Amino acid sequence: MQTRTPAQHARLALLLEVAGTPKPGNVDRRRDLADLRFDHFLAGTVGAQRGLEMAADGAGVGPAFERAVEGMSAQGGGNTQFGALLLLVPLTRAARDDLSQPVVEAVVEDTTVADAAAFYRAFEHVDVFVADPPEDMAPLDVRRGADAVPALEERGLTLLDVMAGSVPGDDVAREWVTGFERSFGAAERLAEAEGPPLDRAAAVFLSLLAERPDTLVADKHGEDVAREVQERAVELHERRAVETDREAVEAFADDLVDRGINPGTTADITAAGLFIALERGVLEV
Amino acid sequence: MQTRTPAQHARLALLLEVAGTPKPGNVDRRRDLADLRFDHFLAGTVGAQRGLEMAADGAGVGPAFERAVEGMSAQGGGNTQFGALLLLVPLTRAARDDLSQPVVEAVVEDTTVADAAAFYRAFEHVDVFVADPPEDMAPLDVRRGADAVPALEERGLTLLDVMAGSVPGDDVAREWVTGFERSFGAAERLAEAEGPPLDRAAAVFLSLLAERPDTLVADKHGEDVAREVQERAVELHERRAVETDREAVEAFADDLVDRGINPGTTADITAAGLFIALERGVLEV
Repeated sequence: MQTRTPAQHARLALLLEVAGTPKPGNVDRRRDLADLRFDHFLAGTVGAQRGLEMAADGAGVGPAFERAVEGMSAQGGGNTQFGALLLLVPLTRAARDDLSQPVVEAVVEDTTVADAAAFYRAFEHVDVFVADPPEDMAPLDVRRGADAVPALEERGLTLLDVMAGSVPGDDVAREWVTGFERSFGAAERLAEAEGPPLDRAAAVFLSLLAERPDTLVADKHGEDVAREVQERAVELHERRAVETDREAVEAFADDLVDRGINPGTTADITAAGLFIALERGVLEV
Repeated sequence: MQTRTPAQHARLALLLEVAGTPKPGNVDRRRDLADLRFDHFLAGTVGAQRGLEMAADGAGVGPAFERAVEGMSAQGGGNTQFGALLLLVPLTRAARDDLSQPVVEAVVEDTTVADAAAFYRAFEHVDVFVADPPEDMAPLDVRRGADAVPALEERGLTLLDVMAGSVPGDDVAREWVTGFERSFGAAERLAEAEGPPLDRAAAVFLSLLAERPDTLVADKHGEDVAREVQERAVELHERRAVETDREAVEAFADDLVDRGINPGTTADITAAGLFIALERGVLEV
């Protein structure tokens, strides 16, 4: 049987992530959001191809990410997979050598100021929700896009430095400074979970949502809401509700969609976990 | 905005086809079959990449198809998109010049005995449901795979000749000898339909199912069943039930899935129509 390449596994991970259901608050196989639909995510996955292939071929993480975001955003829904790609690009780059925590740590440690500049340019391709930075960081507000590059260069900040500056508060960036610990943990849980891949994706999404408050929810709705969502996830996860009481998870999912509460960071880490599990052969499709 | 390549449009067409719902009798966003799941189709789409890129780059239709099928079949569900790829490969090849009926007719007319041999080899990668051929055609039974190649060469049959020999009885092959008329017609209807892409895919699938009895259903369950399915589709299509009485279409879909009746040929032509509509810019995602 032909085997899939790392770049193909990255795209399959994006597809399995969005299809996994129920994934409370997110677009999934059964749910669209108001302006963000399942087909936008399908198109985003197709568009991310070249950037992911660049990462697999050894390109710099920044340029590969920028290219992936540019292609991902060539659909009408806006930002679909920005955060997921920020995890998948270094992971795909690491898979070129060996997909382990030390190797992906080396990949992010090797990032440069040029990678940081490409990351900033990526924000010009798509409208990403970002909280206001502290005042002294205003020159480095990512929403400035390429206009922030001189400030980056003056301070000599690499892409890893930029990510480190976003912690705490952004749990995608946190993966960069913790050796992708939650992503690798999610992969282990995907391997141990039962049932077909989309059920496993749903169960592991819920376990991640129970683990820490979702930082996108905290940015948009405040920390109290993020903690409330986490507490409900803890209750459902502890009684393995995806397997034993699916209706309760479906109801939680519908409630979050109705309230416009979208734990996008948790979905990003789920995608990263799916990639690692596929690449290691512990999750089969 | 970055534009998608023809090979990317082909993959997006496969994704929109399988996600389109309700698509009676087929795997869709809301339904799995007993041994064939949504995630198998997602993986099949990812795997088809290289073959579709070969077609877009001008490779022979046979080798590109064989490669696409080899990659598509690298998942645990078996045959997901064999028929769809048999339409998408020549269409993607035509899109290199101009995606029109005369150009795709020229593409299939240019196929050779070597293309036919590659088509036969493709059957070695995946188990495809095929009806028994007439006795004098037994040496050319596709299920013989590469063993049939000497008989092909002796008779000097091109891939277009092989397709012509499968008409009537196989409406994927029929597209090859009719200038892909139903595929292009489906694209026009996708452009004229209303709503988001997955609703349009469902409506156009139903219109195709109403147009002619599905040949895969006829092969598996007999012509009476194929005609019964068609008649129910006619009734639903005439009153625009996808838009006006979705529950009736959902019930039809559930009934066909329960009975194991899978109009796969109609899904294949839907995918071809989606590709043409995307490539012409008349269907936006």
